[in-house]
Amino acid sequence: MNITKLTNTISLKRQLESGNEEQLRTVRNVLQDVREHGDDALRKYTEMWDGVKIDNFRVTEQEIEEAVNSFDPQLKKDLEEAADNIRYYHEQQKREGYQLPLADGSWLAQRITPLDAVGLYVPGGSAAYPSSVLMNVIPAQVAGVKRIIITSPAGKDGKLPAAVLVSAAILGITEIYKVGGAQAIGALAYGTETILPVDKITGPGNIFVALAKREVFGEVAIDMIAGPSEICVLADETAYADEVAADLLSQAEHDALACAVLITTSEKLAEEVSQQVESQLSQLPREAIARKAIENFGQIYIAETMTQAIEAVNSLAPEHLEIVTKNAEEDSLQVQHAGAIFLGRYSSEPVGDYFAGTNHVLPTNSTARFASGLNVDDFIKRTSVVYYSEKTWEQNAPKIARLARMEGLEGHARAVESRGWTKGEE
Amino acid sequence: MNITKLTNTISLKRQLESGNEEQLRTVRNVLQDVREHGDDALRKYTEMWDGVKIDNFRVTEQEIEEAVNSFDPQLKKDLEEAADNIRYYHEQQKREGYQLPLADGSWLAQRITPLDAVGLYVPGGSAAYPSSVLMNVIPAQVAGVKRIIITSPAGKDGKLPAAVLVSAAILGITEIYKVGGAQAIGALAYGTETILPVDKITGPGNIFVALAKREVFGEVAIDMIAGPSEICVLADETAYADEVAADLLSQAEHDALACAVLITTSEKLAEEVSQQVESQLSQLPREAIARKAIENFGQIYIAETMTQAIEAVNSLAPEHLEIVTKNAEEDSLQVQHAGAIFLGRYSSEPVGDYFAGTNHVLPTNSTARFASGLNVDDFIKRTSVVYYSEKTWEQNAPKIARLARMEGLEGHARAVESRGWTKGEE
Repeated sequence: MNITKLTNTISLKRQLESGNEEQLRTVRNVLQDVREHGDDALRKYTEMWDGVKIDNFRVTEQEIEEAVNSFDPQLKKDLEEAADNIRYYHEQQKREGYQLPLADGSWLAQRITPLDAVGLYVPGGSAAYPSSVLMNVIPAQVAGVKRIIITSPAGKDGKLPAAVLVSAAILGITEIYKVGGAQAIGALAYGTETILPVDKITGPGNIFVALAKREVFGEVAIDMIAGPSEICVLADETAYADEVAADLLSQAEHDALACAVLITTSEKLAEEVSQQVESQLSQLPREAIARKAIENFGQIYIAETMTQAIEAVNSLAPEHLEIVTKNAEEDSLQVQHAGAIFLGRYSSEPVGDYFAGTNHVLPTNSTARFASGLNVDDFIKRTSVVYYSEKTWEQNAPKIARLARMEGLEGHARAVESRGWTKGEE
Repeated sequence: MNITKLTNTISLKRQLESGNEEQLRTVRNVLQDVREHGDDALRKYTEMWDGVKIDNFRVTEQEIEEAVNSFDPQLKKDLEEAADNIRYYHEQQKREGYQLPLADGSWLAQRITPLDAVGLYVPGGSAAYPSSVLMNVIPAQVAGVKRIIITSPAGKDGKLPAAVLVSAAILGITEIYKVGGAQAIGALAYGTETILPVDKITGPGNIFVALAKREVFGEVAIDMIAGPSEICVLADETAYADEVAADLLSQAEHDALACAVLITTSEKLAEEVSQQVESQLSQLPREAIARKAIENFGQIYIAETMTQAIEAVNSLAPEHLEIVTKNAEEDSLQVQHAGAIFLGRYSSEPVGDYFAGTNHVLPTNSTARFASGLNVDDFIKRTSVVYYSEKTWEQNAPKIARLARMEGLEGHARAVESRGWTKGEE
């Protein structure tokens, strides 16, 4: 891994794939087709692209049962424990609205209600991560969303991966459909004969899925468009090089566009991590992917002071930040921008990917400057309520009418004043 | 106004202007130009489109002072009182993160931090609403955003409207720039020599501004793209027809695409409101706009029962909902989807536009199904924190490694296990 002296602010930003015009045209056609022809369009594209003929998209109870029965009981227990941890962490995010009394019997309120229906897209093949099912479904359940459904493309055998079905079963999710690609997004947004539409779509996918989500945005809500994974390790001389290297590689193995950065005040650590990355790389099953990521987006920076190092972290706003320093917690309080922070030697980043309880759907590509990981608030909405008594109206109507007239909106002023029109008649 | 019997679910959805390809090309060119040439590009487009030559974009202290001194003191007091009310309502939304102890000294946390910098776009001319300055700036201030700036196109006289400058001054906002259009959005997103970039852009604008916001989305955060205003009045025989009509018109006067709907269980009220709308329309300064809105998107529905009426409200998910019924508060509890609710005779909708304290930036076009009005959470972000002690790591590492291997991510498993590699050596 390349080592340089930290001088200026640094950036993780990569030009992300945004799709070409032909892909966008395809996606628009598919969405239009699903809107017009419903299930027929789903069948057509499923046969065309997934190479499998499916009559009944809905996964049956029997299929779920079979998946659960065939599944490694130890892994099922691990998934259940992870689910419990995730639920525990996210339950703290649940909140009530408020009611605010004003003078003379008037009041204002904020009411919080869950979304009615949410759809989770799970990509096919080796990207069908059961951990993503937990991370996307649980915050929605904690928010109180009643209808949570999953769509995912079936394999050539017409089945969904057992791990996905088992994860869903653990959470009590039984409305699962074998549809993938842009057509699945169309079904979630517009509905078909089989699939009722949802209010929000979450979950990752390939470029067609990402484009389709962007197209239906506004019709329904979507989560962020996630970019490739990123890890930044902030370390001093107390860190162990082999552990830091292993953590850097854990994200590099995700994607050739993944980003792995070490910022350290220790030249010795920098050298050792660089060597360790090389020797561990050659042992990794996903070596080819990880090597590309390290070559293109791997970097070790040597900082003169911890203050300078933390400034660099803030300019990166990384998705994942590990802090392995003498005063990790104290140092972390200087961090303004990061999706998730992992403190100390034993908080290796995959701890959060799977198990600790925090969410692994996190803002990438420096968007941690303004965006958050998936959380319960992503599945609720707020409604404001105004109750004005006659007396409050009487006191404030002239002010409101003046403000409306200042903006040239006479109709607004009259609406407020109209409460006086019939007063004499009563 | 047209009267029909309520039979099916009803919809407010309109096809919104999404811009044509030429407009999009223009916007992309402008953004590119601003990114490359900074202030020079701003000057060029300001002269080209706003017809005014501006050397120094930054509004001076003197200009602000002059605006304040020339402004109607009564209106200034009204704005100040409105600002206090808005601050009071939004302060209830402020919240802390949390720290969650686990066993063996481990813990999880959620930290909440404000965005660093936010830019508010204020449209030019008659759409430069001072109330929008209050509604956009105050939630950001309550969230703790340190740098809040305003951009707005200057008039031919090279000045911004006094009402905008006074509203800003009331809130202590002094970083204000005379730039409008897509070039302003470019400046906010990328920064120029004069204008440092921001992390989030809020505020309405014309189609060029809306397209530019969509283009820079991802680079920075944006608020929703607001559609034309909507009002739905839910009323029974206890409502006064002239008041209901005045409230319907208050939103109709905003925009020829605005939407005004009455749903009532009273045939008598329906007839009277229809007549009242006609007679009030002819007295309205913005009659032409309001008449178009009423003709195209105005509708009175007669419901057989309040239950049926409320179901219809939920299918509309209106931006503004007034409930003028015998049991308004009770009825409101059945409403699942609305941007803002106004209860009872004296809570005319403009009360919320200007003064009560709730926000007037609200979800339109049925997006209240999943979206919320502007609020403090729009200006914060959440960072998760994981601290695992050695013991917690020891207990859980095997589970985490199993889950990672199940997903085919060996590097993840090794990262977690690596903490054991050097243990023997210590």
